[in-house]
Amino acid sequence: MTVAETPTIEAMPEPVVEPEDAAKPKGLAIICYSGDLEKTWAAMILASTAGAMAMPTKVFVTFWGLQTFVRDDVRITGENWMQQMMSFMQRPGISHRKLSKMNFFGMGPWMMRKLAKQYNVASPKELLEIAASMGVEFIPCQMTMDMFGLKREDLIEGMGDPVGAATYLSYVGEGYAPLFI
Amino acid sequence: MTVAETPTIEAMPEPVVEPEDAAKPKGLAIICYSGDLEKTWAAMILASTAGAMAMPTKVFVTFWGLQTFVRDDVRITGENWMQQMMSFMQRPGISHRKLSKMNFFGMGPWMMRKLAKQYNVASPKELLEIAASMGVEFIPCQMTMDMFGLKREDLIEGMGDPVGAATYLSYVGEGYAPLFI
Amino acid sequence: MTVAETPTIEAMPEPVVEPEDAAKPKGLAIICYSGDLEKTWAAMILASTAGAMAMPTKVFVTFWGLQTFVRDDVRITGENWMQQMMSFMQRPGISHRKLSKMNFFGMGPWMMRKLAKQYNVASPKELLEIAASMGVEFIPCQMTMDMFGLKREDLIEGMGDPVGAATYLSYVGEGYAPLFI
Repeated sequence: MTVAETPTIEAMPEPVVEPEDAAKPKGLAIICYSGDLEKTWAAMILASTAGAMAMPTKVFVTFWGLQTFVRDDVRITGENWMQQMMSFMQRPGISHRKLSKMNFFGMGPWMMRKLAKQYNVASPKELLEIAASMGVEFIPCQMTMDMFGLKREDLIEGMGDPVGAATYLSYVGEGYAPLFI
Repeated sequence: MTVAETPTIEAMPEPVVEPEDAAKPKGLAIICYSGDLEKTWAAMILASTAGAMAMPTKVFVTFWGLQTFVRDDVRITGENWMQQMMSFMQRPGISHRKLSKMNFFGMGPWMMRKLAKQYNVASPKELLEIAASMGVEFIPCQMTMDMFGLKREDLIEGMGDPVGAATYLSYVGEGYAPLFI
Repeated sequence: MTVAETPTIEAMPEPVVEPEDAAKPKGLAIICYSGDLEKTWAAMILASTAGAMAMPTKVFVTFWGLQTFVRDDVRITGENWMQQMMSFMQRPGISHRKLSKMNFFGMGPWMMRKLAKQYNVASPKELLEIAASMGVEFIPCQMTMDMFGLKREDLIEGMGDPVGAATYLSYVGEGYAPLFI
């Protein structure tokens, strides 16, 4: 199959990039959406590394991602039975994240954490602390807090005030490069 | 574990961002790839909010994401038995999206929709209508339409002409900030 | 429900984009994170199309995504039993990717590949070759190689030297638009 036949490369536009025009972003605006162990890990690695590089970094924590930022010692969250049942079925907290695949009753995450330790890779929890100490802002999504019935005291220390999607998008408008994880 | 030991922060480059160089994007170019209820929701919240903020926004709808934009009353799509079987196994339409986790025979999505209603969060369908009315462009992926045997009349009203990845990337080249959801 | 009531569009900021300020990115910096067939496909379509458009493109291959870049003829990878067991449970290689949903003992991917062939859509493997031939750089993540016990000779030909998240973020800092797939 030749490129000319590739249906995805239809009417080929002009080369779109003039390197001399390239502009640097103001920083990084991560949407931490997923609650899976691996994606939480990826988000924390990027956030802590960006922090260490003095790259202004904001992490908007939403949907399942916000579960990660519930305090590890909080077991049930929510104000009504539906919210409580959801938190019961998916235990919140950064130490209780599961792999999106190969979970096998917890053996997958256990192996992953063990391998990480063996190879000196910081855990999501450590990376979160590193990131926060380097000025990365973690900002909870107001809508998610409402839908899951989460209160400020359910969340870990040091998070910013809850905001909505408009505030997140205003960062992107200012020149923060967005990343949806 | 100290930062110096973190294997992910290897040879630390210079601080990479000079805020005065920061350039604003021309707008937002979302790839709406997932067909899961929560991600559809996230994409629609971002698109409708960006629309309300007068941020030029294009949503390239591809792979499972295109299933979301099939008319709710269309049951089976496709021109051959494989395509028809795929649409049978995963009912298309924005009102039939399922959660990526905690599906429990539909109880999860039902609870999620009920919680959303209770907390006055617009449904994906409402957000889609809001976004479209605010000038957000929804553009189907030609390759996905071919692979799933979708016809223009299978899709909801108001979508743009189908295009390929090259057209999407030309938006990014113009300065639209990309987001893969 | 009117827009004014939408909780996600809270204090509406000023329109954030001045089109004349818009700056073009230097290129595309894709994080190829997922090992699912469809996402691998999406990443390869974007990378090969960007390559064909002469858009400078770097693909940072990490976590499950790196499994895709293990040579198809390598069966078991890793230096200890945990790593070997993980590779056993999730066979690496671009020809062995599975759909994230509708897998049905391999029938889903088989149908998807057949439909793709019928509609003249290049396979992930073909797209990878096209992309590489057009100057797209594929860069393995060092941390992932460590955690999964992967060696350079396990990976396909033509990949760059392994680097960490800091190097990836330095591309973003230079003006490459990031995309997490």
